Amino acid sequence: MKLYDSQRAPNPRRVRIFLAEKGITVPVEQVDIIAKEHLDGPFARIIPFGLLPALELDGGAVITESIAICRYFEALQPKPALFGETPIDIARIEMWNRLVEHEFFRHVANAFRHSHPAMKELEKPQISELAGVSRDRALTFLQKLDPELGGRRFLAGDSFSVADITGLVAMDFMKVSRLQCPPALANVLRWHSDVSARPSANA
Amino acid sequence: MKLYDSQRAPNPRRVRIFLAEKGITVPVEQVDIIAKEHLDGPFARIIPFGLLPALELDGGAVITESIAICRYFEALQPKPALFGETPIDIARIEMWNRLVEHEFFRHVANAFRHSHPAMKELEKPQISELAGVSRDRALTFLQKLDPELGGRRFLAGDSFSVADITGLVAMDFMKVSRLQCPPALANVLRWHSDVSARPSANA
Repeated sequence: MKLYDSQRAPNPRRVRIFLAEKGITVPVEQVDIIAKEHLDGPFARIIPFGLLPALELDGGAVITESIAICRYFEALQPKPALFGETPIDIARIEMWNRLVEHEFFRHVANAFRHSHPAMKELEKPQISELAGVSRDRALTFLQKLDPELGGRRFLAGDSFSVADITGLVAMDFMKVSRLQCPPALANVLRWHSDVSARPSANA
Repeated sequence: MKLYDSQRAPNPRRVRIFLAEKGITVPVEQVDIIAKEHLDGPFARIIPFGLLPALELDGGAVITESIAICRYFEALQPKPALFGETPIDIARIEMWNRLVEHEFFRHVANAFRHSHPAMKELEKPQISELAGVSRDRALTFLQKLDPELGGRRFLAGDSFSVADITGLVAMDFMKVSRLQCPPALANVLRWHSDVSARPSANA
């Protein structure tokens, strides 16, 4: 088993944090995205869609998509449960993981991809109007999220879940997208401070 | 329990097909998206993010996001398993469901949202450059998908899964995005014909 990782991209960090929360260690190979190794290095021959992170299993099968990799490890080692155990928890965690992905992380990423000079070669064409709209939508999501986090400790309830991992990674990625959480959103900042204090956040 | 549905949008259809495959019936209420009922009707007070479909549980909890709703029903009634049962199947199905969502469905939807006159009020601003890029990317995905489907019957393997539901809904939505599957992609067309022939496709 080998995990293809990239220290510079946000999605691989989701898997690293997930594995740290589970206490699982796997062999890792770094792929340099800026040098386009994911598009034309040896890695590209293994991973048809050139996506990172990717998990190569001993039989040769390859799993891409952070959340698919996380689900694989959740199935192998169910505890601590990061995708929920009861029907309602499973649904709530999936809902919040996806809300954070679609209504927040996607916009933070688009703000970066469509405006940052480092992405000029990887995101063609860069659409500056989309970067602007994405910045607004990312902040709108945080405003809607703030009252929600007034009533519970974590994104999907009172237990830490994979939704918090997605949220933490997305929020930390705001910096390169030149976005900042408004200081008035005290509940969001309290939550961010809590999840950042966990040892897994260093992964 | 009540499912808030919309006959005119693609995401609610994912849940309807899923329920048809499971043989589950739930009370349904239609929400008219074009009349903006999801943004300022009574529905909007129940669903904080104004997203469809949404499932209201008897205790009052509300689940949004198609896949979260599907996972709720999978947890209540595991058979037939549409999210996989073994670690590798669970991971493969999640991977393909997400690849179809991120590399295909998202682009088909953006081509529609950013070019169709009916979306003028709901997608502000419409970015015509994004519609064009999205059309190209949707077709690029189908080209990469075609050889994959030469080697297996369904998207994630030899069994029908939730990934096929996402794929079918996305492919049928190409029409309103003024996209067409190239006739040369015989494996994609064979797969589409197979999944369209299932009774659940009428849901």
